[in-house]
Amino acid sequence: MIAADLTPALSEPLLHLEQQVIQNHQAIEHWFRAQWQDHETPFYASVDLRNSGFKLAPVDTNLFPGGFNNLKEEFLPLCVQASMVAIQKLCPDAKGVLLVPENHTRNQFYLQNVARLQSILRMAGVRVRIGTLIPDITEPTSLELPGGGKLTLEPIVRRGNRLGVEGFDPCVVLLNNDLSAGVPAVLENIEQQVIPPTFAGWATRRKSRHFAAYSRVAAELAQLIDIDPWLVDPYFGTCGEINFQERTGEECLASHVSDILDKVRAKYREHDIDREPFVIVKADAGTYGMGIMTVKSPDEVRDLNRKQRNKMAVVKEGLEVSDVMVQEGVYTFETVKDAVAEPVIYMVDQFVVGGFYRVHTDRGQDENLNAPGMHFEPMPFDGTCLLPELESRRDCPPNRFYAYGVIARLALVAAALELEAMAAEAEAGEAPVRRLA
Amino acid sequence: MIAADLTPALSEPLLHLEQQVIQNHQAIEHWFRAQWQDHETPFYASVDLRNSGFKLAPVDTNLFPGGFNNLKEEFLPLCVQASMVAIQKLCPDAKGVLLVPENHTRNQFYLQNVARLQSILRMAGVRVRIGTLIPDITEPTSLELPGGGKLTLEPIVRRGNRLGVEGFDPCVVLLNNDLSAGVPAVLENIEQQVIPPTFAGWATRRKSRHFAAYSRVAAELAQLIDIDPWLVDPYFGTCGEINFQERTGEECLASHVSDILDKVRAKYREHDIDREPFVIVKADAGTYGMGIMTVKSPDEVRDLNRKQRNKMAVVKEGLEVSDVMVQEGVYTFETVKDAVAEPVIYMVDQFVVGGFYRVHTDRGQDENLNAPGMHFEPMPFDGTCLLPELESRRDCPPNRFYAYGVIARLALVAAALELEAMAAEAEAGEAPVRRLA
Repeated sequence: MIAADLTPALSEPLLHLEQQVIQNHQAIEHWFRAQWQDHETPFYASVDLRNSGFKLAPVDTNLFPGGFNNLKEEFLPLCVQASMVAIQKLCPDAKGVLLVPENHTRNQFYLQNVARLQSILRMAGVRVRIGTLIPDITEPTSLELPGGGKLTLEPIVRRGNRLGVEGFDPCVVLLNNDLSAGVPAVLENIEQQVIPPTFAGWATRRKSRHFAAYSRVAAELAQLIDIDPWLVDPYFGTCGEINFQERTGEECLASHVSDILDKVRAKYREHDIDREPFVIVKADAGTYGMGIMTVKSPDEVRDLNRKQRNKMAVVKEGLEVSDVMVQEGVYTFETVKDAVAEPVIYMVDQFVVGGFYRVHTDRGQDENLNAPGMHFEPMPFDGTCLLPELESRRDCPPNRFYAYGVIARLALVAAALELEAMAAEAEAGEAPVRRLA
Repeated sequence: MIAADLTPALSEPLLHLEQQVIQNHQAIEHWFRAQWQDHETPFYASVDLRNSGFKLAPVDTNLFPGGFNNLKEEFLPLCVQASMVAIQKLCPDAKGVLLVPENHTRNQFYLQNVARLQSILRMAGVRVRIGTLIPDITEPTSLELPGGGKLTLEPIVRRGNRLGVEGFDPCVVLLNNDLSAGVPAVLENIEQQVIPPTFAGWATRRKSRHFAAYSRVAAELAQLIDIDPWLVDPYFGTCGEINFQERTGEECLASHVSDILDKVRAKYREHDIDREPFVIVKADAGTYGMGIMTVKSPDEVRDLNRKQRNKMAVVKEGLEVSDVMVQEGVYTFETVKDAVAEPVIYMVDQFVVGGFYRVHTDRGQDENLNAPGMHFEPMPFDGTCLLPELESRRDCPPNRFYAYGVIARLALVAAALELEAMAAEAEAGEAPVRRLA
């Protein structure tokens, strides 16, 4: 079923975790059904996972997923079917969706993602037009795509509190823009439903908040399937008021690094794991793998050189980093064609619709792979994460992929809780929404 | 994308119908969303279609579909995902489903269907055990399956008004038994939800009633996409109190045959179709392709020889035929490897989850293919029916498959209306449920 050179080889012994997941598969699905009775499902999300054989955990949950173009064509029917569910739930009368993408017009990969999303939603039976926030685009602009086809960006038009493009009044606004630069005025107080809500953008969202919610649901799942929650949940801590340039807050970082390394060391001993613990220091808000470093000792964050400090100080759109998250590093022992790889799982509504591997030929098992030089390899088709081989107790790819789907959906439940709490705060007027200057 | 020898070749010119379907695809999906807001979706169904190039229509809608084993493995994820939706809707707390199959233990193909269904539902996250109605099975009995694996049939146990098997109290009873022999007492007045409801069995269901509902929804869809409803809807009429052995009711049959042939001849003229009209005479209740004949003149039903009369007189389980349906015959101009073929489309909840071709090397384009000697050929993967190529206006397989999915779902909406009406009658105590002696 799987092309040999794509088979990700796990170099560690059989996951106890994976066994527990497969054996408790029906209880897990039942638990998820209960979650989606109680909580609103995000429209879509992608989750970066790390699998070290002994541990499988999410390290990033993206609420504005940008890699639909990396999914194999064979996953498209699942995307379309799940989108039908999402659309029917969201707004059964939806005839029109306004898709608001990132402001990149030169990133061909991203444009292909937007085109793929448009195509999926169209096949699911809604009209989709693309409203751009780019001020320079003042009339419909068609961009040629590498693989053929084209994408038409249109300037967003606001009439009163309704958003649309010329001649198109959608009933839903779907953001594929993570609002790193803040919520633009044109998106504020919109009459139509905006999904994900603007407060899910990086101007207000914090990774630490997501992982705090994740810890709660991971503990529930761990109890259900009788595992140590740590096997699916990385330790983390946060420091506010960091200024890398002015070197303030370094002591907070060093103390968290030291604390987490100690805790991981204890866990490694408990589970007989002969590895060196490491932590990842990253911006608590923001994306694109910027502002991320691997640290194996508290001293390393005390003596950052200028280059390292510059690298950590800003993320996408020049957003300055002041809140920092220190997270237990999870080794990835998966490889694709001998290069270090980590799975990225895509979800639409409550369903896993596919995934791919992020691969980096120049990075190690303890490094962030979301960095220049990375590339993507499709998951094999039995990597739909939907087809566990329940009779098989051995480590087999469908069961590993099923476990990926479980952990990714666990992060999705966490995102749902996170968004619920933010919505409650936004309603109470508590959430400080950073605005564009 | 498609293996050449599997490409079904349409020998007629481009479907006007298909063009209209593709061009109005978003309006169609919107219409379906509205239907599923108003009507309860059957859990599953399969629809036999006939495609003559100028006309595409359902000829049979099976509410107890028996060919899940004929779906390609690649369609499994769609089946699982759709089953997740169905289960969540039906009963979010469902931990257990009792699957009640037909009483065939020697039909290896059917057993594989049951095993496939069990596997799909398990992967969707529910426990599934198989409760058989076969009186001889008094303890759990494992049957070996041809492709490996086994199926365990267990005697149904009724405690008060709850149905289960030893040590298993399911929350839903899923019938994969069309109750041709009537509703057994053990299935009556069950506390749990029984799906499809027992009145959907052939003891009470009538094809003519399904096609009457179909005509109504077909007329709606036809208006929406601006086509002659006849292009998707075969004429039909019914005769009650037929007795083939005693040769009573032949005049009613002959008169319907004559009437329908006339109407079809007029339509063929209107649409410039140079073909000879034909009708299909079949039992109004019952399945398995028994009791079906092709007729091109009213005289043919007046002079049935003994063999033909015997063939028409009974269907499955020796059910005697007294209600007969006369239905416009739809040519099938699809071929697979030069043999006459008709598509069979499978649905779970509101979703098309796959399909295959029923192929018969010894039958003509105007004959019933559901007969001994038939075999099945998988649909190519782009035959998911979910991926119309909206930019393409030419006849291309994905668009033809999409049209199949639309017509199959139209029959599904008709089935929903049919079941609703039957439920209302059952509640009012009007439906005569034939019981087992």
